[in-house]
Amino acid sequence: MKILIVGLGVIGGSYAMALKAAGYEEIYGIDNNLETLRKSEDLRIIKKGYVGGKEIIKESDLIIISLYPRLVKNFIEENKNLFKEGSIITDATGIKGHFIDDILNILPSKVDFIFGHPMAGREKRGIDYASKEVFKGANYLITVTDRNKEENIKLLEKIIYEMGFKRIKRISPNYHDKMIAFTSQLPHAIAVALVNSDEEGRDTGSFIGDSYRDLTRIANINEELWSELFFSNKNNLLESLDNFLIEINNLKKSLLEDDEEYLKELFIKSSKRREKL
Amino acid sequence: MKILIVGLGVIGGSYAMALKAAGYEEIYGIDNNLETLRKSEDLRIIKKGYVGGKEIIKESDLIIISLYPRLVKNFIEENKNLFKEGSIITDATGIKGHFIDDILNILPSKVDFIFGHPMAGREKRGIDYASKEVFKGANYLITVTDRNKEENIKLLEKIIYEMGFKRIKRISPNYHDKMIAFTSQLPHAIAVALVNSDEEGRDTGSFIGDSYRDLTRIANINEELWSELFFSNKNNLLESLDNFLIEINNLKKSLLEDDEEYLKELFIKSSKRREKL
Repeated sequence: MKILIVGLGVIGGSYAMALKAAGYEEIYGIDNNLETLRKSEDLRIIKKGYVGGKEIIKESDLIIISLYPRLVKNFIEENKNLFKEGSIITDATGIKGHFIDDILNILPSKVDFIFGHPMAGREKRGIDYASKEVFKGANYLITVTDRNKEENIKLLEKIIYEMGFKRIKRISPNYHDKMIAFTSQLPHAIAVALVNSDEEGRDTGSFIGDSYRDLTRIANINEELWSELFFSNKNNLLESLDNFLIEINNLKKSLLEDDEEYLKELFIKSSKRREKL
Repeated sequence: MKILIVGLGVIGGSYAMALKAAGYEEIYGIDNNLETLRKSEDLRIIKKGYVGGKEIIKESDLIIISLYPRLVKNFIEENKNLFKEGSIITDATGIKGHFIDDILNILPSKVDFIFGHPMAGREKRGIDYASKEVFKGANYLITVTDRNKEENIKLLEKIIYEMGFKRIKRISPNYHDKMIAFTSQLPHAIAVALVNSDEEGRDTGSFIGDSYRDLTRIANINEELWSELFFSNKNNLLESLDNFLIEINNLKKSLLEDDEEYLKELFIKSSKRREKL
């Protein structure tokens, strides 16, 4: 089976590493950056790298697209006549709703695009930060469309488990976007707001413990990728933000009204929920 | 040097372990819980444990109080006639302002209370979760009062470094409380609000990645301790919450006004600040 990874950034590179470790040998890569291709070949995580890659697209049984959301559609558009009959395409895009509709509109019927989302990432960019470890024990979401063939989904799921993921959940694109607004985009918004609310010029680094460190790790954020993700899922994210603000205001209320019992109730509720995770 | 640790919970137990590892042999403990005392003796992190401990208080050169904030004053009040002439007392309390004033009012002049705050902790309670590792590389804050002797502060700082802490900062009690509201209490408030803003009954666990996991670890919170900490530092915490809300609303504004450039600016600002930490 020939596997092609399109975009050898931190996520694409991690796919290559995890697939290699799982025993796949026929792994190829496409990237705009020659240095990235050379590094990937040197690491022997791909057999060969391409810039355009028309020749390898034709031969690939599985194509994993790991590009910024808006570039995925471009890639399909540009190569739609090249895909191999019966091949599978998947992606790693963090939003699904309209994104899937746009792609299904132009997707040739000879390929099966199974939309996926590995719930793992790193705050750094580029192949240098790729690692198969990042997938170990992580969640994977598959947003099934009525064009997907069950046998292809099963094959992809087998490969996902082989790469080290622990749990795969099949869900609808709309539910994906609603949940992701809460579990991924809201935490990123919070981390950014927390860091930005610091007063300028303080020696904050001398006053932090693990809590501040953990809550702000993802405030170091790829602004191109995450502005795309936020705007593509704007309404869900705004709803999650508003639900969060209600809870922040509950905490404020308990303080302003000196209501210690209420504050403790909020703490007990969050502790129980967090224990269950 | 005889060292006495009052309260062998997760922090007190960690002190005992770190001091033992640093080569101190004469370590004693006071705790209400007999099981905790037995475990601490079995682990050989203390030489002997006491419930009341009046006899060991009289002989101790350094007393480390690791109790809930409101119990620290009780301990001083009850034992003020027992402390050894010239001995040092320190604490691990997460707030300092009024707390210090209250204690200085009743503190006998023969002891030197150097107020401290190890910026390290765990979300779990009790000796079973104690570990010297938690102090490795962590920050330590000392809030100096005009009654402290420089030679005593130096001695305590030497011991703090020996336990594995990386950086000690001397600051005023009021500045401590202002900074801690931002770096410690605000993150805990955020984590609690984030978890509590989830909709009831969803299979959230299948949708989370490292970001949600990291941001909510501390939502599992000791409600007795943290309600004391929040109310003892209410005004500073409310100010930090309001500054944070301004930034959340900036993010919301960028979304509502479709202002991608502004959103990217916010991301770039948080990334730069986080990199600097």
